[in-house]
Amino acid sequence: MQYYPASIRNLIKNFAKLPGIGEKTAERLTLHVLESPKKEAEDLSKSIIEVKEKVRCCIRCFGLSDADICGICSNTGRDKTLLCVVEQPGDMVAIEKSGAFQGVYHILHGFLSPMDGIGPDNIKIKELFSRVEKKEVIEIILATSTSMEGDATASYIAEKLTQYPIKVTRIASGVPIGGDLKYVDQVTLKRAMENRHAILL
Amino acid sequence: MQYYPASIRNLIKNFAKLPGIGEKTAERLTLHVLESPKKEAEDLSKSIIEVKEKVRCCIRCFGLSDADICGICSNTGRDKTLLCVVEQPGDMVAIEKSGAFQGVYHILHGFLSPMDGIGPDNIKIKELFSRVEKKEVIEIILATSTSMEGDATASYIAEKLTQYPIKVTRIASGVPIGGDLKYVDQVTLKRAMENRHAILL
Repeated sequence: MQYYPASIRNLIKNFAKLPGIGEKTAERLTLHVLESPKKEAEDLSKSIIEVKEKVRCCIRCFGLSDADICGICSNTGRDKTLLCVVEQPGDMVAIEKSGAFQGVYHILHGFLSPMDGIGPDNIKIKELFSRVEKKEVIEIILATSTSMEGDATASYIAEKLTQYPIKVTRIASGVPIGGDLKYVDQVTLKRAMENRHAILL
Repeated sequence: MQYYPASIRNLIKNFAKLPGIGEKTAERLTLHVLESPKKEAEDLSKSIIEVKEKVRCCIRCFGLSDADICGICSNTGRDKTLLCVVEQPGDMVAIEKSGAFQGVYHILHGFLSPMDGIGPDNIKIKELFSRVEKKEVIEIILATSTSMEGDATASYIAEKLTQYPIKVTRIASGVPIGGDLKYVDQVTLKRAMENRHAILL
């Protein structure tokens, strides 16, 4: 590191703060920036600032958005009666990538974890109920993660939702498609056994 | 990609232009920037621009530098009579890291490759001879790479230097330390055999 001029050391240090980027990789990236066209470096630099300045939470679903209302919430082609509850924006993106869902989302930005002091008021649960009270939603799919906390969060919401006349479902959990049973962990296998269903012919 | 707002898509695209960063990693890095403190993103953005603006070539050795003369050339503790010739700034850094050299450097910024139209005038060979003519240098160590082009470049320089009263050496090549003979390539082994030497006791 000390063999480089200060500005190079500085960039190496800043690249190395990114996840999964060690000092060696940071060094390679820095030398690339140094050799690449100035325009490319400027674009990268500018887009880092822009992402911090422009991206905020959609005021409806709390997903990532450049505007007040995100692209999904403002899309008239999406089914507003179907609401999928997830923990993080990344979960929403994963479901979108699967192409399996045409409704809208609600991002909790976390999960209940009383041990860490995270209660219902610390995540976007209140906002979820406000949306439910607008009586637009017919079904809520709880797609929080299948961890203990994710399950607890789903159970908490499901129980609170019993007072509303809506259908509440949980995404299925079990053996991943293409997964070799040998490599599937025991808890998943146990869950897959418990949730076994008749074969649809 | 299309599931993200434009500014996020933009940053993912720009991160993915860096070497060894695929779209998945670019996505992870972008989400990290999004979640990290604003100061950290600003530092990264600024240091990218700074590296392009501040770093230039040392006017003496052509190494990377923040100033006209680099830290090594301006260091009075370095032996100016010992000159190590390398192809790229990265090679200089590698030698510095080994701690095995206390002299100064000359970076060629390339190697001779007539097939690609790269002749002596396209790399910093003329500048090397200007330095030699100042009569400060006693020994020149040719540390170009051990590829065919690196060897040819070293031979070319060595021949041209015969007209000056200086010692010209080439870094040794052979089996890497800690290297298992089984995994060493044939050309390296052949070279190691040819360059065998008496054991110093």
